[in-house]
Amino acid sequence: MSTFVALDTVDVRFPTSRTLDGSDAMNPDPDYSAAYVRLRTDAADGLEGHGFVFTIGRGNDVQVKAIEALAPYVVGAGVEDVLDDLGEFWRRLVHDSQLRWLGPEKGVMHMAVGAVVNALWDLRAKRAGRPLWQLLASLEPRAIVDLVDFRYLSDALTPADALEILEKAEPGRAQREAELLRSGYPGYTTTPGWLGYDDAKLERLCREAVEAGFRQIKLKVGADRDEDVRRLTIARRVVGDDIAIAVDANQRWEVDEAVTWMEALRPFDVAWIEEPTSPDDVLGHAAIARRVKPIRVATGEHVANRVVFKQFLQADALQVMQIDAARVAGVNENVANLLLAAKFGVPVCPHAGGVGLCEVVQHLSMFDFVAVSGSLDSRVIEYVDHLHEHFVTPVDVRDGVYRAPTAPGAGSEMLAESLETYRQGRHG
Amino acid sequence: MSTFVALDTVDVRFPTSRTLDGSDAMNPDPDYSAAYVRLRTDAADGLEGHGFVFTIGRGNDVQVKAIEALAPYVVGAGVEDVLDDLGEFWRRLVHDSQLRWLGPEKGVMHMAVGAVVNALWDLRAKRAGRPLWQLLASLEPRAIVDLVDFRYLSDALTPADALEILEKAEPGRAQREAELLRSGYPGYTTTPGWLGYDDAKLERLCREAVEAGFRQIKLKVGADRDEDVRRLTIARRVVGDDIAIAVDANQRWEVDEAVTWMEALRPFDVAWIEEPTSPDDVLGHAAIARRVKPIRVATGEHVANRVVFKQFLQADALQVMQIDAARVAGVNENVANLLLAAKFGVPVCPHAGGVGLCEVVQHLSMFDFVAVSGSLDSRVIEYVDHLHEHFVTPVDVRDGVYRAPTAPGAGSEMLAESLETYRQGRHG
Repeated sequence: MSTFVALDTVDVRFPTSRTLDGSDAMNPDPDYSAAYVRLRTDAADGLEGHGFVFTIGRGNDVQVKAIEALAPYVVGAGVEDVLDDLGEFWRRLVHDSQLRWLGPEKGVMHMAVGAVVNALWDLRAKRAGRPLWQLLASLEPRAIVDLVDFRYLSDALTPADALEILEKAEPGRAQREAELLRSGYPGYTTTPGWLGYDDAKLERLCREAVEAGFRQIKLKVGADRDEDVRRLTIARRVVGDDIAIAVDANQRWEVDEAVTWMEALRPFDVAWIEEPTSPDDVLGHAAIARRVKPIRVATGEHVANRVVFKQFLQADALQVMQIDAARVAGVNENVANLLLAAKFGVPVCPHAGGVGLCEVVQHLSMFDFVAVSGSLDSRVIEYVDHLHEHFVTPVDVRDGVYRAPTAPGAGSEMLAESLETYRQGRHG
Repeated sequence: MSTFVALDTVDVRFPTSRTLDGSDAMNPDPDYSAAYVRLRTDAADGLEGHGFVFTIGRGNDVQVKAIEALAPYVVGAGVEDVLDDLGEFWRRLVHDSQLRWLGPEKGVMHMAVGAVVNALWDLRAKRAGRPLWQLLASLEPRAIVDLVDFRYLSDALTPADALEILEKAEPGRAQREAELLRSGYPGYTTTPGWLGYDDAKLERLCREAVEAGFRQIKLKVGADRDEDVRRLTIARRVVGDDIAIAVDANQRWEVDEAVTWMEALRPFDVAWIEEPTSPDDVLGHAAIARRVKPIRVATGEHVANRVVFKQFLQADALQVMQIDAARVAGVNENVANLLLAAKFGVPVCPHAGGVGLCEVVQHLSMFDFVAVSGSLDSRVIEYVDHLHEHFVTPVDVRDGVYRAPTAPGAGSEMLAESLETYRQGRHG
């Protein structure tokens, strides 16, 4: 039996705004950052759990402070007690009777829970000597159901529904796991699409994306309609007709504006329109989805929790569900999100990029394929070629495909040197 | 011309959990707290702007930190520049391209904006020598429209709609202002209804509420159905048939559970059911509202922003809209909320209680009556007899009625002595 002895935090910031990497219609100058947490125990194995909230700069210190507010739950607790029942521990964190007021279940405090929960999963996977996706996919269906808090979901998804989904997928697990290890999971790339790039760079990056084996790219849109048409013309010309092109408005539009704007982009055979409007606006997305058919609506990177995702599905307001590894309250809530998507028959194509989001979210998609949806159909994981070099086990994306990670853990551990170099205050 | 020279914060906590004041089905042991902000200028008048976020204890330090993250926007800025265009300043705070990621527009960061914005309004009202409600109600309709950010609202409320509502109310302003000064605004009391009280105390407080002139009381429900029936039986017996009784489940239920539970409470002629389920669940509330008719559904104290309120109204998911002074991004967003309610013809009955919420929110209801809805019909402001003694201008509630405040400011200033006594770390 061992005990958690420390919850350490680091305010890590990369000065990405200098190069306009990551610029879009709503986020012109992000400094990709992480409110980072490391859980230490007194066990002889020396293993640690690492997790983070991704932010884009200012306010990362607020996010760090929120993570620190959870230390009393962790420090001094028995490691095995916590790790053996992460469903129960999740409920204790999320439903803390006083902290809950600060959301509830949204924003800074909810993301802080996510960082701690993900760090616990990282530790659990390291202790098991397995990558997180394999650990999750090895759990009994009932154990997976126990990870989920069904509060506020029961009108759409009950524990019995979840169990049925998981049991149906069980017979094919071994075969799909082997398939993943052999062939990986398809990715798509957003690297060419940032608004800050000039035409030559756009063209070059589009060409390189196809040469690298990606079957889908994504372009940022929404700042200027004529510019979008122009950039889509270039992109479609360069990638040809066989490569899918998704577009992403980063919440820029009103409902009517989204519909009109997408009429202008319709000739380019757009795979999906992402974040057309406020991520809180379920009914707005539903109206947009009805009016831009057959173009699919995608959203999720800013969807605060499973209750909002539930409504997006109930209202047919999204046709592509984009879970994020660090927006909701960690692995447990994303298991709920995957089960909701499976119940409604909607594909999950995670948001990634930022700092370490690719590293973490690949585990959720691979778990989904092995043990939940059982399908790769219409499913791709976002890939952005940023900042992977700072991670202990960076993603391995080759020929447009995420290779299944085999190292123990959740992928969330940054290099000690990177943490030190980019710790707030240490860089210029 | 003067300049903001400081943004000071205080972490204020009252140890209310010791007496079970404020206990309900979801919040068993709140320590009513305020993440408090004070804005100082170099003007000779010595006036300050005070504002706060209400929390219930743990995490108040996180909320304080979030307020401090906004200091760069305020300190060094020209006071007149900021106060003369609070619509523009609101947009700058809310849409900060990096801080926005921490919500967007929800939770800790959004409430921090609310505290700062409310402090600015407090200062503006003090400078004008008027209570906030009168200051707001003296603005030209176009100036009120300029306070509102219509982003994500235009499918339900346009600037033209807002102007029409405000212009329609303009001719009656003087008469309604006089009526308020003469007769006040009706309140209702939640003082009897907390779950922690025994029967004798419940009975005594119900009797005292009627004797004090209140025409409505509210009881907390949702922890135990038989207990709720028993307590409602006592309450109805004591207050008689002419006093309205609302009930409040504080988000305790699933959708079906809410409907079944309310069937059991239907015989008590319930005025409204408040927060039956997750405050994020627009579609869930809509389903509940359809099924418990003619009982009205009320919610709002945890509704994160105007975009969510918009959907509640579009879906007929609430019939009573409960704005909160410290949940959304301050006065400006609540002006948007009042305009949305007026557009949909739904009465606004603010959430209050906590620390200082009564003091602040009365200004919004009175502004609504004078300049927006023009109506007192079905409208009441919540009143709880807690902690008013800590404010410089405490509410004056007599004969069940909020007397219109006449002191300059927004009501949000706490006594220096209280700030010092209950500053975190100073009490036992």
